[in-house]
Amino acid sequence: MKKTAIYHRSVPSMSYAYDKETVHIRLKSERDDLVNVSLIYGDPYDFTADEWQYHVVDMNLTGQTELFDYWTVAVKPPFKRLRYGFYLNDKNGEQNVYTERGFYSQAPQDIGCYFCFPFIHENDTFSAPSWVKDTVWYQIFPERYANGDALLNPEGTLKWGSEKPTPTNFFGGDFQGVIDHLDHIEELGITGIYFTPIFKAYSNHKYDTIDYMEIDPQFGDKETFKELVKACHEKGIKVMLDAVFNHSGFYFTPFQDVLEKQEASSYKNWFHMREFPVQMEPIPNYDTFGFVPSMPKLDTANPEVKSYLLEVAKYWIEEFDIDGWRLDVANEVDHAFWRSFRQVVKETKADAYILGEIWHDSMRWLQGDQFDAVMNYPFTNGAIDYFAKRTIEAKSFADNITEVLHMYPENVNEVSFNLLDSHDTPRILTLAGDDKDKVKLLYLFQLSFTGTPCLYYGDEIGMAGGGDPGCRACMEWDENDQDAALFRFVQQLIHFRSEIDAFGNSGSFRFIEVDNFKNIVIYEKKTEETKLIFVLNNSNKAQSIVVESLASKKVNEIFTNEEFSFDESPNITLNGSGFKCFMEKL
Amino acid sequence: MKKTAIYHRSVPSMSYAYDKETVHIRLKSERDDLVNVSLIYGDPYDFTADEWQYHVVDMNLTGQTELFDYWTVAVKPPFKRLRYGFYLNDKNGEQNVYTERGFYSQAPQDIGCYFCFPFIHENDTFSAPSWVKDTVWYQIFPERYANGDALLNPEGTLKWGSEKPTPTNFFGGDFQGVIDHLDHIEELGITGIYFTPIFKAYSNHKYDTIDYMEIDPQFGDKETFKELVKACHEKGIKVMLDAVFNHSGFYFTPFQDVLEKQEASSYKNWFHMREFPVQMEPIPNYDTFGFVPSMPKLDTANPEVKSYLLEVAKYWIEEFDIDGWRLDVANEVDHAFWRSFRQVVKETKADAYILGEIWHDSMRWLQGDQFDAVMNYPFTNGAIDYFAKRTIEAKSFADNITEVLHMYPENVNEVSFNLLDSHDTPRILTLAGDDKDKVKLLYLFQLSFTGTPCLYYGDEIGMAGGGDPGCRACMEWDENDQDAALFRFVQQLIHFRSEIDAFGNSGSFRFIEVDNFKNIVIYEKKTEETKLIFVLNNSNKAQSIVVESLASKKVNEIFTNEEFSFDESPNITLNGSGFKCFMEKL
Repeated sequence: MKKTAIYHRSVPSMSYAYDKETVHIRLKSERDDLVNVSLIYGDPYDFTADEWQYHVVDMNLTGQTELFDYWTVAVKPPFKRLRYGFYLNDKNGEQNVYTERGFYSQAPQDIGCYFCFPFIHENDTFSAPSWVKDTVWYQIFPERYANGDALLNPEGTLKWGSEKPTPTNFFGGDFQGVIDHLDHIEELGITGIYFTPIFKAYSNHKYDTIDYMEIDPQFGDKETFKELVKACHEKGIKVMLDAVFNHSGFYFTPFQDVLEKQEASSYKNWFHMREFPVQMEPIPNYDTFGFVPSMPKLDTANPEVKSYLLEVAKYWIEEFDIDGWRLDVANEVDHAFWRSFRQVVKETKADAYILGEIWHDSMRWLQGDQFDAVMNYPFTNGAIDYFAKRTIEAKSFADNITEVLHMYPENVNEVSFNLLDSHDTPRILTLAGDDKDKVKLLYLFQLSFTGTPCLYYGDEIGMAGGGDPGCRACMEWDENDQDAALFRFVQQLIHFRSEIDAFGNSGSFRFIEVDNFKNIVIYEKKTEETKLIFVLNNSNKAQSIVVESLASKKVNEIFTNEEFSFDESPNITLNGSGFKCFMEKL
Repeated sequence: MKKTAIYHRSVPSMSYAYDKETVHIRLKSERDDLVNVSLIYGDPYDFTADEWQYHVVDMNLTGQTELFDYWTVAVKPPFKRLRYGFYLNDKNGEQNVYTERGFYSQAPQDIGCYFCFPFIHENDTFSAPSWVKDTVWYQIFPERYANGDALLNPEGTLKWGSEKPTPTNFFGGDFQGVIDHLDHIEELGITGIYFTPIFKAYSNHKYDTIDYMEIDPQFGDKETFKELVKACHEKGIKVMLDAVFNHSGFYFTPFQDVLEKQEASSYKNWFHMREFPVQMEPIPNYDTFGFVPSMPKLDTANPEVKSYLLEVAKYWIEEFDIDGWRLDVANEVDHAFWRSFRQVVKETKADAYILGEIWHDSMRWLQGDQFDAVMNYPFTNGAIDYFAKRTIEAKSFADNITEVLHMYPENVNEVSFNLLDSHDTPRILTLAGDDKDKVKLLYLFQLSFTGTPCLYYGDEIGMAGGGDPGCRACMEWDENDQDAALFRFVQQLIHFRSEIDAFGNSGSFRFIEVDNFKNIVIYEKKTEETKLIFVLNNSNKAQSIVVESLASKKVNEIFTNEEFSFDESPNITLNGSGFKCFMEKL
């Protein structure tokens, strides 16, 4: 037995309450080493004649990567308390019991040896708002979505779409523009809009906040924003705003005060000033976002700053009824701040959503006390490298995705914010080398995967664009220049997500077959009633593959609505970049 | 390379701020697989011409067990931000770079591949009160320490020490008794007293609280308690009380109200009642401690209960100036409660200490937001099994201790509450089969180990006693029946702890040699100025051992104050259960 590869620890990624009565336990082992893993479990206090009364249940192999097998099981301890260990059987017939104190040949009677999940507390259990699971997001960069009120145009506003986006030009996008086009968004099937910052700022991207309590005048006034939120809500669309709390903009009044009065400024402790006088070159002598002197880092541990920002968090929910906050550079702000932030946000609106921008392993923020979700860049990377760039093989892709799924608890995965691109990256069509068939595979995977997908404005009608500023072009509203077929395809996927339970978050995801040679992946989404089998050909040439799990099944292909009655060797033919999804009623 | 055994994740046990400028990074690998591990690290934003500017530093092999090697390094990132990965070299000359995205043959340029420690926030950094590191605790079970005021004796109080302790008898121990004997405690060198519960309760152990705001009348009144705390403080002794917040006693007024009024009780939500009428047999139909009907579990998520208990936490600090809280059954209370508890306690007294009773892996509570320490039972188990019971071999013992040290951050280990016994276990002398030489080895190890040691009242003068109630006998105050030699030995160890910097928490602990055959362990405690080499013979027979690390050294044996000038093969002879500690000035 490969003991050194076997890993479990009673930490939130491997041992967590899924809901108020269910505990999930996971174990990692070397690939193909163990043939069977069972959980030994029981109540910590359930003793008869000094013998601990334990139960044994098989664990499921829920994922395999090149290196590891992942085992998972759900148990419902009747008194909410759990002590547990693992029975391990390897391929050579070796048996061991794995506990918090290491390996034993037999299950030890000393309960102190076992791992412990002491009590399921509902208030400690990770729990995102229930609506999030079923939401499909749409990201809007307001300066570039639509110019609905020319009177608000900032000085030098260019004619819509007349020029390429630059870091400094303006096209006059505003709230009225969004209101005017809500039908487009609704028609696509969107149920949530994520707006990049709308607060008073200097730049066109508005990430350099001047005043967190004011709307940028180019977008409209507070009345118009209220209208916008109301109009969204009437169409069943949630609204999420972008909070840049890690740093302020250069023209934020407190920072200007520090620049002016230096050490005498009463705001000097609002930032992380290391010395005076303030110096910006060659490297700022105060903490900043990156090394950007115009983005001074806020001291979110300073009670004044904290209470100001928490007031901001509360104000926009209370006054405008927004449904969520997306937190910029969330990883560089202190955990203590985010814990208070969660408290204030949830007290103000119990089902508000909190989404952190974190590009790396985010377990520290996803323990139930801080965020409801993070932007799932590990998903993004895997999907882009495999489908868009084709720089990794099918098995590596499956490994990446399997690792993402086993890195976080299942209730975290269900609300993970799965994006393909954003205002910070090239557009998906450009990443895919302008190949719309690749883009369709990407959307199919994104929209059938666990989590909540987000589309970047304009992608749905085939807009292209490189990295910032290229990806921030004006939304194309001329129907002649919109790709209506792509729009309908995305619309159909979103529709499937809400119409076929297994397609969305109710279906549990599992790779069935991954073929490096043919560059084909087959995966399953499954509920108790329905099983969907997805077959994706990520190569340019037409190919056939035998899909064992369809053997002797009668199924329906959901894109063509064709019925198939397969024999014992179901041979599926796919075009280059082709795909099929077979639905079986269970 | 044994890739499946290599493990790092950016979670608090493996990647944490040690202080406001230092980050510790750890890696685990299969024993004897890697010959060299280096950290690749740099600022996440430090790019020149698109190339990430990283540094490389060797990691130290800080521990070895049967299965694993543990590698550790400390770095001080100038801008408090860190991206990092690992250079691995194995014994066969294979080289790999290990990152958050897996293994590479060369260090990848894409910074997104690396692990991340986004920013050192002082307020997120685990930090216990500075006095704790140097504290030696003494646990007092007040009913059995000394009867100083006969007027307070409860009905049926027995003559001091006239009978064996039973679950229900009383000997009239009280605060005056403790005050009267503070000289004994001071003389021993104690700097902190941990009192088991003192609040109004029914039993002799007082874990069944009736009123959290009142002192049990058998112990004295609030004035006397104030005097006691003052008297302790005058002698430089801190005072820690025991908080039983997981459950109340049967006679706690709110529970009595529920029993009386059933579903109509306004206290019904103070507990976890599952149904009415309340039923105690055969199993209570409400949550309890274990299955004990008289210990109803408090609903600490109920805002009323929470605010009541937080008021309790505050009251005893504010009014009586106590220095710490020990939290009974701390693992079964919700994390949200403990986070609020920490906030209230630290706001009331910034350097108050919070100690949780947890018997298993406690990482979830030791991330800086909840406890300052837990009772270190993994240490206890290892020490008892090895020195007292001799049921495990020297190498297993060293494995246990090495695992404890690498399970938690170093700043956590430094304040870990290291006990050998308590009111819940047999006394150490009894565990050691009444062998005082074994007890001396235990004390030597406990008092020279990382963390803060705690002695159970009476152990220091040689009291014996089995499990509860045997371990709760009246303190022996007749000097003829006290073991003065043992007292002086413990006193000397405590003295060493304060006089020789390397002996206490300033010294870093490392096993040097562990010999199963001879049953000898050799370990080192080291500061920049001083190195201590401890040699412990855990067998009954006299033995010799060559201690390589003393070769050609001139050292001083601290117990005998003998000078030794060793040659190239320093042969040390020890009596059965003998020990030596050599001090080298560096």
